[in-house]
Parts: sequence; C-alpha cells; structure tokens
Amino acid sequence: MIDINPDRLLTHLRALAKFGAIDHGVNRIAFSEADASARQWVSERLEEAGLHASIDRLGNVYGRNRKSSRAVLLGSHTDSVPNGGWLDGALGVIYGLEIAFALRDRPLQRSIGIDVIDFQDEEGTISPLLGSRVFCGELSDASAAAKVPSQFRIDRRSDAALFHHYEKDRHLAYLEAHIEQGPKLEAAGCTVGIVRGITGIRRFSAQAFGQADHAGTTPMNTRRDAARALFELMDHVYREFPRIAGRDTVWNIGDFAIRAGASNVVPQHAQMLIECRDLNEAVLENLEGSLLARVRTHNASGDVEVGIERIYCTSPVPMAQDIVALFERAARRLQHRSLTLASGAGHDAMILARAMPAGMMFIPSIGGRSHSSAEDSKEEDIISGCRVFAAAVDELISARSNVE
Amino acid sequence: MIDINPDRLLTHLRALAKFGAIDHGVNRIAFSEADASARQWVSERLEEAGLHASIDRLGNVYGRNRKSSRAVLLGSHTDSVPNGGWLDGALGVIYGLEIAFALRDRPLQRSIGIDVIDFQDEEGTISPLLGSRVFCGELSDASAAAKVPSQFRIDRRSDAALFHHYEKDRHLAYLEAHIEQGPKLEAAGCTVGIVRGITGIRRFSAQAFGQADHAGTTPMNTRRDAARALFELMDHVYREFPRIAGRDTVWNIGDFAIRAGASNVVPQHAQMLIECRDLNEAVLENLEGSLLARVRTHNASGDVEVGIERIYCTSPVPMAQDIVALFERAARRLQHRSLTLASGAGHDAMILARAMPAGMMFIPSIGGRSHSSAEDSKEEDIISGCRVFAAAVDELISARSNVE
Repeated sequence: MIDINPDRLLTHLRALAKFGAIDHGVNRIAFSEADASARQWVSERLEEAGLHASIDRLGNVYGRNRKSSRAVLLGSHTDSVPNGGWLDGALGVIYGLEIAFALRDRPLQRSIGIDVIDFQDEEGTISPLLGSRVFCGELSDASAAAKVPSQFRIDRRSDAALFHHYEKDRHLAYLEAHIEQGPKLEAAGCTVGIVRGITGIRRFSAQAFGQADHAGTTPMNTRRDAARALFELMDHVYREFPRIAGRDTVWNIGDFAIRAGASNVVPQHAQMLIECRDLNEAVLENLEGSLLARVRTHNASGDVEVGIERIYCTSPVPMAQDIVALFERAARRLQHRSLTLASGAGHDAMILARAMPAGMMFIPSIGGRSHSSAEDSKEEDIISGCRVFAAAVDELISARSNVE
Repeated sequence: MIDINPDRLLTHLRALAKFGAIDHGVNRIAFSEADASARQWVSERLEEAGLHASIDRLGNVYGRNRKSSRAVLLGSHTDSVPNGGWLDGALGVIYGLEIAFALRDRPLQRSIGIDVIDFQDEEGTISPLLGSRVFCGELSDASAAAKVPSQFRIDRRSDAALFHHYEKDRHLAYLEAHIEQGPKLEAAGCTVGIVRGITGIRRFSAQAFGQADHAGTTPMNTRRDAARALFELMDHVYREFPRIAGRDTVWNIGDFAIRAGASNVVPQHAQMLIECRDLNEAVLENLEGSLLARVRTHNASGDVEVGIERIYCTSPVPMAQDIVALFERAARRLQHRSLTLASGAGHDAMILARAMPAGMMFIPSIGGRSHSSAEDSKEEDIISGCRVFAAAVDELISARSNVE
C-alpha cells in the first residue's frame, strides 16, 4: 500500500501556489520568472523524495528513480494560464511528488518504480503541450529549442539531459491527475472522475462578404447583408447540431464580429468562430459535413458569398482501457463514487497516449470553475483523490512487477 | 420661366468639387480648411449671382435677395462625410446658386425672390444638422458657438450676422435638392424622386449577460450563453419584422459583438445594435413593441438576462403636401418620370420642416452609391433635375406672388 500523507500533500500544494500567487490563484505562465522558480522548487522537492531530478532546456522537470530500470510515469504541468487556478496541472505534479515521498518512506519492494514529470507550457504560452510533445518526440529538439525565449534561464544540473525524452523500455505507462475543468463531478456527487478519452476538436472560421450600404435608404430586398448570411449559419448550428450530435457532444459559437459595425450601415463583412468536440470521430465528421453542406446550399442560392475554413483539428484520443479499469477499481476499493467521462479539454496525457498506455483521473472543481483564479477544490477531495490515484499506481506496479 | 444654364451648372459643381478633392469624391468634413475655403467660394458665387452673401460664425452661408421682402429658401450643405461624394448636398446648394444666376439674367418680375443657403455640418462631424438647427432656433446660438472648433477661421464680412436665423415673415418655404442615397430611382428608371417625408428612426442596443465557461468541458444544458440569447432576438428581428413592417420599412442589425470572443470560451457578454426606419410612427411603435415583448418573454424563462435600451429616436417628418404636388407637377410638365418616395436618411429639410413648409427632390445615384467617393450621377440627370427643381420654384413664386 502507498500510504500518502495528507498534511505533506496540502503543504506542498500550498507552497507551490506561492510561485506567481495572485488573489486565490496563480499567474505562472510558461517561461516566466515565477514558472522558472516553481520548476526549481519542484526539482528540489523531487530530490528530497529520493528521485534524481533534473530540468531540461525547456523547463521540463524529470524526477527519475535510479533504483529501478522500469517505471510508471506520473505527472502533469505547473505552468498556468494568465491569472489561472492554483490546482489545475499542479495537482498532478504534486500527486506524483507525494507518491514519491510515500515510496521513499515505505518502499514497495518491487522491481518497478515511479518517475515524476512536470511538463513545460501545457497551456500554450509559446506552444500548447510543448513539453510533452518534445518528450514524446512529436516535436524535434531543435524546433523546441528555437521556441524557448532567450530570457528563460533555469538552473540546470551539470548531468542533466538537454531535452528529456520518454524511454520505450523504461516507461510502462503514464498516469496524470488534474482538476476537472467542468461541473460534472460536483453535479453527480462523485469524488473522482475517470477519463475515458480526450475529445477531438474541430474549429471553423466562417466569413461572409456582403456590401456596405446605407441602412436607411437601401431597400431590404436589394441588400447584401453579410451578418444575415452568417446568422443563417448560426441558425443551422443551433437547430441542426442537437439532432446530429451525440449525448456528450459540445459545440460553441465563441465569436461573432461585424466589420465595420455601425447601426446605420448594412454589414459588409462578418466573421464567426464555431467549434465542436466529441470523443467519437464520426460525430465530428457528421457535424462538419452538415456545416459545409449548409454553406454550399447558401452559396448556390444567395448573393452573399460565405467562406468556411477548418482552422484547427485534433482527433479524439482514447485513454488505455486497462488504466480506466484500474482507476475504477481503485475508487471502488476506497469506497469513493466515481464517474467515467470524456475530457473536453486537452492535456499532456493526450500526447503521452501515443507513446505509451496513458490514463487520467480528475477531482471535482467547486462550481466547475477553471482557468480562473476562483478555481478551487475541497481539501477532502484533494486528499481522497490522491489516495485513489496512489491505490491505482500501487495496483499497477504490483500487477506488472508480478508479471516480470 | 427660370431658364437654367447647363454649362454653368456643371462648371460650378465641378469647381466646388475641387475643394477637398480626393479620387472621384471629396473629403470636406465640416470645419476643415477645405470646408472653409468651399464656403468662401460659395459666398463669392452667390454675390456674383446678385445675392447679398454672408457667412456666419458657424460657417452657414446665406445669400439674401435684398430686392424682395419675401423669399423661397433654396439650399442644402457643402460639408461631406470623410471621403464622401462630390454631389451629395453640394448638388442642392449649386441648384440654388444656378437658379439665382438664372434669375439675375432673366428676372421673373415677381414680389417674391429666392434666398440660397449652405448649411454647416449636416453630416455631423461635430453635431449632425448643426447649421440648420441653429438657423431654425432648435439649438441656441451659445450652445452652437461652444461647439465651433477654435481653429475654424472664416472670412466674414463686416455686416454679417453672428448667426443666421430663419425669418418667419420672409421665408415662404424651403426647397432642397439632394442626390438619392439609394438605388430606387435608378431601378425605377426615374429622373427625379419626390420626397414624401423623412423616415423616423428608432435605434436599440441589446445586451446579454451570461457566464464565461470552458466550451470543451461545460455541458450544453448548463451553459449561460450570452451570444445565444441575442441570437434568439436576432431570429425574432429577421422572422417577425417582415410580418409587422410596412412596404417601405427598413431595419438593420448593424453590429454584433461578443466579449471576450474566443472559440473555446462560452460567450459571457454579447451586444447588438438594431435600428428600424419608417415614415409611419405606428409601424415603428409596433416594431419596438414586438422587440420589447420578445425580450420580456426571454427574461421570464431564460437564465441569461437580456437588456434592451432605445438609444436613439427621431419621429418621421412629412414634407409639405403642396410642395410634393408642386414637384410632381413640375416633373410631369417637363415630361420626366418621377417617383414619390420616403427619404431613409436625415436631411436639413427635416429641421426646416418644423419652421416652414419644406420639400425635397432627389436625382438618381449611379448604383445607389452614397457617402463614398464612388458616388456619382449622370450629367443628363443633374441637368434635368435642376430644370425640374427650377420649374417647381418658378410655379411656387408665381402662384404665391399672384396671391399677394
């Protein structure tokens, strides 16, 4: 059993929250001074917990168990969005740290150990998921090096690798804890959320090109109103998407702008951003198809040209089924209610899942707040979450060590 | 008969267009150097045409027939919007000037003369319809004086009034010519448009207050989407207004903005501008009533509060019926097709109509372009328009002089 220490867990979480502290949250964007200091602190704590810690040129902090040749990798990220929450990814890093401390105090006597990682720039100050993409080889070291701001100075140890990379023969699996960035766990009265997969995203920019005219003197039937053309597309999204979508599909019209907007000018140009997310690629495909068909129909009949462009696309990433089951068993063993759900937000686990079996666990967020200094979780949920996470790590290590 | 000289008319129009000339149009905003020089030029031409011309502190240029104690007032404005058209209001001033020249050359031998006026800042660089509002006493001289920019220097004659004002016992009527600011005359193949009235305007700002949430992690049914709430109001405008509106009603959703717009954030705040115009106050009343009722219904059931505010309101201003008939007869006499229509844009005649009988006549605009340097009219329409306008002035002077 991995016996975590709730006081130490909370003390470390609160100590980390001092780096870049604002209001109740943190402003610790990647590559800032607060970010560099926090990573230095994480590195020192990992050493204290008995791991060999080093920081690479990006700022990825890697705590390696030198006694084991195979390891379960635990972690997340400590960078934040501007004026973000104190938990977010920090929670996953400190869960990893706490499990390292617990194992230092009471080793499991297994051939498999744990490594802990704190990825750089998950939030995308420079580039989203930068640290994990380099770690998994999805972005070359050279490209990554070119992105690091020149003022970013980190106190690297002399034996540190320039860039940390995952090791195929070493890393059995990646487990990441994170605060839920929505209200589902709280609403369902659950202590932990087990992530079935990370939804794919398709994002579109639609533009309409009409003609500016005097809104007082141009008859309604001769106008070429760009805003009205996009309104018809908006209408399609609000009315048709619910019919095509799955139970958990989400979509959003997050921006709509008229250029040059004025009450007495018929809109010449309008632009709108639409996105949709689902765990099922086929659903995303249907939504996109329906949107494009609507635009084609419009352009075949209307005199305001509408253009639509897919500006961003990620595929859904399922989490490893055996890790989903592992978390479910751990929650049941500790008698905590759990909910298996999709993650609508991206995470480092999305990248890691392409390199090794990966799984994620959420704890509830009060009011579902996220990416806000108002983000918070109950202490009891933070502690219970860590216990479930540790129990899952314990079972994974024990089961796989037996196999060897 | 008032016998206009087409060459002189076009020469004067083109000479005036040199002040602030850009591309095919003019940039002659009120109180600019180009505006002051143009007014000086207009004043000199009015003198040349036999009127006593003077410029007041605002820049209103008034050409007075000192031989008559009663006069028909002709005019419009020579200021333009930024990068505006060369005709616009300049047309009405030069029509007045040309009629003054024609009467200098061949006087009508009537007791009633004509006065010509060139109003300041119709376009609202400082304040819309500034010159005509002061002329009619709707704005005090002191308030107006406070608005005049200190760098505005005009060469006033020593006997000029500080501010020109209309004279109840002198001014029989106000007649204004203007280019149509829309496509109706061209589409109907008419040479002149006779203005039945100037539409009233009601302008609304609608705002919705929702909650910003992560668009990937917040379930659809728990969102408070501000943009969606305004979309429902937009839907109402596009679907219900055509049912309530009159044949000539126009409306516009000229601006729509989401704060802070981002593809992955549920819109927290959205704002929209709606306006409608009609010659019939009851129609405007019904449109407003329908809009407010829709907002009330929304607020009674929805969890996104919508606020709507009337930010601008003008009443319809009918033109004097006998002047409408006068223009119609003049067009018929000269065998030009005419269309009697509402003006969807504001004009100085709107202010003058509250002080004396007022009427307006339009000539066609090529492609309906307006407030653009691309604005233009055919030479033949400019000339025919002036002939119809002069014939109407002729009949009015002759008819009213006989009565005396």
